Amino acid sequence: MHSSRRAETFPVNTPAASQVFTTVLSHGPLTRLEAARRAGLSPAAVTKAVRPLIEAGYLAEDTDGEARPTLGRPANPLRVNGDRALFIGAKVTGDEIIGVLTDLCCRMRVSRHVPLSGPDPRSVLQALTAVVQDLLSEAHGLGAAVLGLGIAVSGDVDRAAGAVRYSPFLEWRDVPLAELASTATGLPVTVDNDVRALTVAEQWFGAGAGLSDFAVVTVGAGIGCGLVVHGRVVAGAHGVAGEIGHVTVDPAGPPCHCGNRGCVEALAGDAAIVRQVADATGLPVADTADALELAHRGVTGAREVYARAGEAIGRGIATVANLLGPERVIISGEGLAAYDLFAEQIRDAFAAAAFGSAARCDVQTRPLPFEQWARGAAATAIQSFIRADDQRPSR
Amino acid sequence: MHSSRRAETFPVNTPAASQVFTTVLSHGPLTRLEAARRAGLSPAAVTKAVRPLIEAGYLAEDTDGEARPTLGRPANPLRVNGDRALFIGAKVTGDEIIGVLTDLCCRMRVSRHVPLSGPDPRSVLQALTAVVQDLLSEAHGLGAAVLGLGIAVSGDVDRAAGAVRYSPFLEWRDVPLAELASTATGLPVTVDNDVRALTVAEQWFGAGAGLSDFAVVTVGAGIGCGLVVHGRVVAGAHGVAGEIGHVTVDPAGPPCHCGNRGCVEALAGDAAIVRQVADATGLPVADTADALELAHRGVTGAREVYARAGEAIGRGIATVANLLGPERVIISGEGLAAYDLFAEQIRDAFAAAAFGSAARCDVQTRPLPFEQWARGAAATAIQSFIRADDQRPSR
Repeated sequence: MHSSRRAETFPVNTPAASQVFTTVLSHGPLTRLEAARRAGLSPAAVTKAVRPLIEAGYLAEDTDGEARPTLGRPANPLRVNGDRALFIGAKVTGDEIIGVLTDLCCRMRVSRHVPLSGPDPRSVLQALTAVVQDLLSEAHGLGAAVLGLGIAVSGDVDRAAGAVRYSPFLEWRDVPLAELASTATGLPVTVDNDVRALTVAEQWFGAGAGLSDFAVVTVGAGIGCGLVVHGRVVAGAHGVAGEIGHVTVDPAGPPCHCGNRGCVEALAGDAAIVRQVADATGLPVADTADALELAHRGVTGAREVYARAGEAIGRGIATVANLLGPERVIISGEGLAAYDLFAEQIRDAFAAAAFGSAARCDVQTRPLPFEQWARGAAATAIQSFIRADDQRPSR
Repeated sequence: MHSSRRAETFPVNTPAASQVFTTVLSHGPLTRLEAARRAGLSPAAVTKAVRPLIEAGYLAEDTDGEARPTLGRPANPLRVNGDRALFIGAKVTGDEIIGVLTDLCCRMRVSRHVPLSGPDPRSVLQALTAVVQDLLSEAHGLGAAVLGLGIAVSGDVDRAAGAVRYSPFLEWRDVPLAELASTATGLPVTVDNDVRALTVAEQWFGAGAGLSDFAVVTVGAGIGCGLVVHGRVVAGAHGVAGEIGHVTVDPAGPPCHCGNRGCVEALAGDAAIVRQVADATGLPVADTADALELAHRGVTGAREVYARAGEAIGRGIATVANLLGPERVIISGEGLAAYDLFAEQIRDAFAAAAFGSAARCDVQTRPLPFEQWARGAAATAIQSFIRADDQRPSR
């Protein structure tokens, strides 16, 4: 997280406190006892951790009788006071910036789309600043301070350094985006890979809540994957992780922009679909909407392209399942618009390639529009805010 | 862990205490301050955690002056008292059982090989019991109690249930090995997948010590992979994980016992090498020693089989690196005997298929004979012993 000035800090500085807060955020309202059980802490540690959070207004204690047991001391549930703070999340695509204003519980309050004049860092920063100013005005009306900005960008993003190392879609290399955006907006800024940001939102508030091991696979311009292992998003020791798009499906397949052949993305990414449908039908295909229409109309060859794409995605998911054994795989992304055309092939290829009980993984689809990706960026900002001092070394 | 009777329990029942102990075990001797820093705990929590461990003789405090700072209170380093307890580890192969007796620091004291009369559970149990009795006698002479037995078996092993779900090499299905072995030996028993057991030993005492994200890839009869992510060995939600052997390299490749084609194992496992070298040379090839000899003699076609095997392994490792971004990949296994024949192809295929900075992963080889796998089994028994009550829920 990069911050030009420190607007407000979270009143905890122990791993236990941020863990309790995160637990209540994902699963609340919870009694202290339940929060202790879920966070793996003693009830005394929870009581100690929540005191400053209640005093500063981040947590509230419901004092009505609903959860009161008939015997013993009252079990007042703890909940996060969502109105206490606001956050902004922004997802950068090749065409536009989608910005959302959320509360501390990551509930969306306002969303905005601003077109980009170009994909260069200067144009993106300009549009981003406009979105943020707009959302800051909205926040003013809601009476709470905006405590952080999260930005989600596709590609190799170094969250700790706040830099975009390489984004093929934006054609960026080594852009210190957190520093630039923080200087432009005055907010503490977190920059993360877009799929990882979406995965954080799914982990805390979506189909991954309560799971310690799951994957989010996104199908669209690129084929991406966010992985949660042992309860934490995998970032990779060198910034690269979840590159399901570059799992090889067929070494004799079409060339991929990564330099190899037959990667999942070279068969199932938007550009690959458009090119293959044009080749197979001999018709002009400008974009995925054209390709989709030809396939739905039953033009010879178009459906087969989607079938092969589905098979590639299914094999990629099986590779993830065979290596990590997740409880669930959530398929999302704008490519779901074609889901009826390749759902069966995804399922069949997954079942055929999954090894033994890895096939028991729950594979499900979940449409998540780009606002949800922006919300994911807001979730990373919330995460940075509440874990600013959580520097536990790995074991 | 299955236990017919409880010989002796570890005198801690908090996650903090087992974490401190594990930290000192892997990195000790450590001062309290250093142990606190590495375990992410307060010095007060460390002091509280170590008191019963020192009293029961599991930890010792060095009181000489070497680590004493010139100012302030003395910083007496903590170390694990290895002589305090002994453990037995056993690795089951298709031909024999390798058993080792280790101390609490997992240092090998004695090792034994006992041939198997057959791969059926009854024969294995008989040989296992003989090895354990033999090592228990040896332990008697060392004057410390044996507090646990770890057994490492290839295949789908459910450690929590103590059962071998499916082991293709032994042709076992649903064998409650922990219960059987505990009844036969009277020891608390931990059963784990053999590659995961080896990975635990590498994590605590080997080339993975101090790393939070690494992989162990084993080349031999099978091609296996143990994964450590966020400091913990990945077990998979349904018992399957690390199945690098079933990453598809070529969908048009040779059939694999898993039902697919062109898996890494179908190109680079021992049986695949033997079959392919026989096919390529037209000569009789009984085992990997024969195959290796033909390749080393330069018989036409034999070297190419190893080259393709190396390429398959390199692609498999790149898939792991692209999905998880580990800091290091350790290649081991009896297949390293052929390493000069495919090292270059592993390196080249990895470099070609690794995506972006995932290529910065440190790929190294490390010969680990079967005694080391048995030592890994002992490490899982030590782990069960010191974490018996560590039931932290995942977040």
